[in-house]
This record gives sequence, structure tokens and C-alpha cells, in this order.
Amino acid sequence: MKKIHIIGLGLLGGSFALAAKKIFPELEITGFDSDSENLGVAVEMQLISKALPEPGKDTDIVILATPVDTLFEILDKTLSKVGEKTLVMDFGSTKDQLCQQVSQHPKRAQYLAVHPIAGTENSGPKAAQVDLFDGKVMIICEMEKTDVHLKKMAYDIFDALNLRLRFMDPKDHDLHLAFVSHLSHATSFVLGKTVIDKTADERNILDMAGSGFASTVRLAKSSPEMWGPIFLENKTNVLEALDSYIDHLTAFRNRIANYDSEGLKADMREANKIRNILDFKE
Amino acid sequence: MKKIHIIGLGLLGGSFALAAKKIFPELEITGFDSDSENLGVAVEMQLISKALPEPGKDTDIVILATPVDTLFEILDKTLSKVGEKTLVMDFGSTKDQLCQQVSQHPKRAQYLAVHPIAGTENSGPKAAQVDLFDGKVMIICEMEKTDVHLKKMAYDIFDALNLRLRFMDPKDHDLHLAFVSHLSHATSFVLGKTVIDKTADERNILDMAGSGFASTVRLAKSSPEMWGPIFLENKTNVLEALDSYIDHLTAFRNRIANYDSEGLKADMREANKIRNILDFKE
Repeated sequence: MKKIHIIGLGLLGGSFALAAKKIFPELEITGFDSDSENLGVAVEMQLISKALPEPGKDTDIVILATPVDTLFEILDKTLSKVGEKTLVMDFGSTKDQLCQQVSQHPKRAQYLAVHPIAGTENSGPKAAQVDLFDGKVMIICEMEKTDVHLKKMAYDIFDALNLRLRFMDPKDHDLHLAFVSHLSHATSFVLGKTVIDKTADERNILDMAGSGFASTVRLAKSSPEMWGPIFLENKTNVLEALDSYIDHLTAFRNRIANYDSEGLKADMREANKIRNILDFKE
Repeated sequence: MKKIHIIGLGLLGGSFALAAKKIFPELEITGFDSDSENLGVAVEMQLISKALPEPGKDTDIVILATPVDTLFEILDKTLSKVGEKTLVMDFGSTKDQLCQQVSQHPKRAQYLAVHPIAGTENSGPKAAQVDLFDGKVMIICEMEKTDVHLKKMAYDIFDALNLRLRFMDPKDHDLHLAFVSHLSHATSFVLGKTVIDKTADERNILDMAGSGFASTVRLAKSSPEMWGPIFLENKTNVLEALDSYIDHLTAFRNRIANYDSEGLKADMREANKIRNILDFKE
């Protein structure tokens, strides 16, 4: 493996470039970003050695790390142009629609659908971190549809980056991620908006916010350009998660309204179990 | 100032003891906790030098750091028993009801209503941290009702602990805190419960949760015994905050349902403003 080309040089694309270059110093990493300012920053930061509008024919792996609503068009075009020995993979947060769209592509076997469970509330090339992927989960969908030799290249680099591989059906992926990722982004955005609306005329109120509020609202800093398309592309599952959340929230609200102290505490004790689950992970 | 007595040796009471002892090594800190296990731990950890069921007559400051639903009874009893040179203060997260309840107490001038904006999702004496209060906001309510000489003792120690004082009406305190603290605890508890309910049979789904989910759900680990009484005591304001949040959430949900991409992005851009506000604080 000698050449990687990354399309979309934001947090994920940029971090992958930094980590890959650190582990494989010989690797030639080229890339492109439709935002010319980001592209300039990526070159300046040496995330990529060269800006190229398209991957060269002898590129081993092309990575697509752009918002999910742009992925199919770029994937379709890229697959059609690359040589037979090139693997193309995307880092999108939704997988079902893209896997369906690409299913009939003559070069389907050259595509690997992956989703790294890694990120921060920051975006753009300047947010890139060399250790962003270290120890994180990498979900791989429809692995059986990808050419065995091509996907080995990907697994080798994932291994080197200390990613933990999980294999999953795209529909399961999208449903599960709606609950463990998309929902918390939505609740955080809405928490931020609710509090800003209330305190609009008295910003000093936020001076009273502690670290707990900061933690809960952190994801409200995330990129609208990235998250709008995720919510819409995974609409059915996100709505299931949000509707379930609103039902739980309404029940919690009603327990407060009815001074149902025992019911409230029972709900909170149930929620407390998240400690064991998450601490076990860490 | 020579003697402090702390009733309630959990996260806040324990952290205050550690910090005060560090800054004033001569200070004698005694204390009590109705949970005998916590009391034993507090003695073992040397948060207090001695367990005493009640403060001695010559105690300078008595601090009440117990759940809000227990505060008035303890405050009333403590005020009645202490000598004339003792200041009593509570660390409760709600202030209006307590200030009203104590308003007619003959020793009202010996009471100072404060609320340190400091905490973590952990509770109990083992969660105590010597630097928990460092640089944090300390809200003081009805300062004009407290004896000027007694409150000077409190201000001196707050100063030494590097607390930033804010003075506020108890009703304003409770309303503002409902939005910048109580609401995020409620949304986090409910997020935890929603996801646990959904993934009950497949705990491995949570293996796919990233750091964003962990951040948003962190407060769901908080103590039900502490938070149940806060939600109920601040019911009117917490319901206002929750109802506003549910309205915003429903609007966000409907934008997704209606593929309203521009509306969604506008909501998220508004929420993004939390970055400037919180970063300015840091």
C-alpha cells in the first residue's frame, strides 16, 4: 500500500491522514476538499502532501469523508473512475441508503462501507487529531460484498490504527446509531437552543452554568452541515428514537408535576445503570 | 475562625472540608452524616477530624450539605441550638422555599443561603475533590438578611477557596438554575433511560456509543436521592424549563419529519452559539 487519497479533509478525513502518515511514513497521502479554504489549511498543516482533484489511477485506497448527503454522488463517480486495484470506502454516519444506492454498481466489490465511532464537537481540518481513532470502534457493513484482497488492505490499516472492528447489517447500524449517537446529538442541539432562547437577554445567566451543563450541551457545538443530512437520511430511525425520548421525557415531567417522588427516583435509578455500562467500556 | 462543622459528608461537604483544611491547616473540622457508612469513610479519609452528632457551641461555621428536602428541618434545629457567634449556611441547589421557611426564625441573621456551582456526577465522601470549588461560582441569596460580622467569616473562606461570588434573589436563582442546571440533569437522566430501555436485550449496542453519547449522558449517573428533591422542590421552574424543552424538541422532530433541511440547520446554527458563550466562560 503506497497511496491514499482522501476526499473531505475535515475532522475525520484529517485525523485519518495524520494517523496513517504517522504509522506509515512512506505513504503518499493526497486529498481534496470542495471548500478551498479547508483544502488550503489541509495542505498547510501537511495533512496531505498534495491537493489533487481526483485520485491517481494507482491509488490504493480512496476515502470519502464528506457529509452523508454528498456521499453517493462522489462514491458513484469515484468508483467509475478508479482502476481495478483501488478500494473506495466512506466514513459516513448512516449506511443503509448508501449501501442500497451502490448495490448495483458494476464495481460494488471495490467499495467498503465503514463508520468510525470517533469524533468531537469540532469540525474542519484544524480539528484533526492524530489519536482520534486510537482504540475506537470501526463498524463495517456488508463486508461480504467487498473483494477479499481489497478489503484486506483496509483491515491492515485499521489494525495498525488500533481500531476495533465490528461487523453489522446496514439497517441494524442505522437503527442502533439513531439511539446511541444521533439522538444525543439532537437532544444536545435542542438543549442548547432552549437555554439560549430563554437567556437571550441575560447572557450572564450562563455564567451560573456548571460543568454538568457544559458536558450535556457539548454536542450542540457540532456542525449543522454534517448533522442536518444525517438526521434526514436516517429519518425513520431518528424519529423513532426522538419519539421514544419525548415519551420518556413527558412521563418524567408528569412524575414531577404529580410529586411522584418514588417514580422519579425509580426512573433515575434505572438511568444510573448507564454508569456500569459505560464504565465497563472505558 | 477555628472550628467548622459539616452536616452531610458527600461530594460537596467532603470537598469543602478538604479544601478548607488545605488552606487553613489549623482549622478543626468536625462533621456528621446520617449514613453511618459515609460517616465512617469521611473519618477514615480524614475529611473530618472527628464525628460529632451536633456542632459544639463554639463552632464558627456550620455547613449543611444534605439533600434539599432535608435542609429546613436541619437548619431550623441547628439555628436554634447554636451560640450567637455561629454562622449556619446550606449548599442546597434550590433556595426560594428554604429562604421563605427560615424567614421568621429568630436567628435568621445567623443564616447565609449559598449555592456553590460545583459538582460532578459522582456522590458520597469518596467523590470529594480538594479542588472542586476552585474558580467556581458561589451564589449567595438574601445576603442583606445575614449579620454583617458573621457573613464576613464566610466571605473570607470563599475568597480563600477562590470562589467567585454572585448575589441573587432566591426566586431568580431557582428559575435560572432550572434552565442551566436542573434541565440538563433531567434531559440526561431521560436520555440514559431511553437508551437503556431500547437496548435492554442487546447491551453490546452500547459498545457503539462514542464519546459524544458519554458526554451527553454523563449526568444520568447522578444521585437520585439528591436530584429527586431538587426537581420536586423547584417544580414550577423545572416544569417551565422541561415544557419549553419538549416544545423545542417537538419542533426539531417535525422539521426532520418534514425534511425541512434549512429549518433544521437554522436551529443547529442557533444552538452552535453555545460555543462562544461557554468558551468565553472557560
